[in-house]
Amino acid sequence: MRVPGCVFCDGDAGVVVHRAGGFRIVRADEPGFPAFYRVVADGHVAEFTDLDDAARLRCMACVAAVERALRSVLAPRKINVASLGNVVPHLHWHVVARFDDDRCFPAPVWSLPLRDDAAPLIERLRAALPALDAAVASAAAAADLH
Amino acid sequence: MRVPGCVFCDGDAGVVVHRAGGFRIVRADEPGFPAFYRVVADGHVAEFTDLDDAARLRCMACVAAVERALRSVLAPRKINVASLGNVVPHLHWHVVARFDDDRCFPAPVWSLPLRDDAAPLIERLRAALPALDAAVASAAAAADLH
Repeated sequence: MRVPGCVFCDGDAGVVVHRAGGFRIVRADEPGFPAFYRVVADGHVAEFTDLDDAARLRCMACVAAVERALRSVLAPRKINVASLGNVVPHLHWHVVARFDDDRCFPAPVWSLPLRDDAAPLIERLRAALPALDAAVASAAAAADLH
Repeated sequence: MRVPGCVFCDGDAGVVVHRAGGFRIVRADEPGFPAFYRVVADGHVAEFTDLDDAARLRCMACVAAVERALRSVLAPRKINVASLGNVVPHLHWHVVARFDDDRCFPAPVWSLPLRDDAAPLIERLRAALPALDAAVASAAAAADLH
């Protein structure tokens, strides 16, 4: 099902790095957080438990693949994973690499910024994006095999 | 592994409603959000991908069970699911029922309150907690069978 006006139905909502099994992995364009990916259901379902068992497994295999790639390439302080959807109720999982010197750490990325000196980190992360996209795609392709 | 000083190692960190397969489901005591559960790894691991494949499946089966129970008993506007752990890097998934009139909706529960008239909702949710705990325990037990 497609819902006109839903940002995740109207387009990919990010740079697609992998697509398979009813889900796509996109790199989001979130100010201040370059290493920010989303696992998005192609269909317009609101909740994780709107998926059947097999789809939930595929979904979390994608989430785990992104997490593995982020850890492997960036060695972040922490990975944050979340499915909220309060504003856009189309299932999407945020998978974000967090760093001591990112602009909100240790608060969630949706919080007010705690510091304004994150530019060096952002620059370093942006430089890593081609390698990161490739690592995410590779990890996701490997996950498809399971 | 147990890490002294970690709130999820030192105790259950909530009212335990289910425990099996290396995870416990606890009802948290979060001000303003009575319908707030956590799926907590018994062992001190930081990241979702620190779990092996089978443990990740058990973990998300618990998350899905909590979500099903919350939806069934409360019919919330949205379910929020998140694994952050920036402050306490011991794997725990927040599973929270959200409502239009909760104090932060549609912002994440970690945001500054948007309204101060959530008392009626909170009272209604608190009254539902015994039924909710029972529904979560029942859904989790059913998930163990898979």
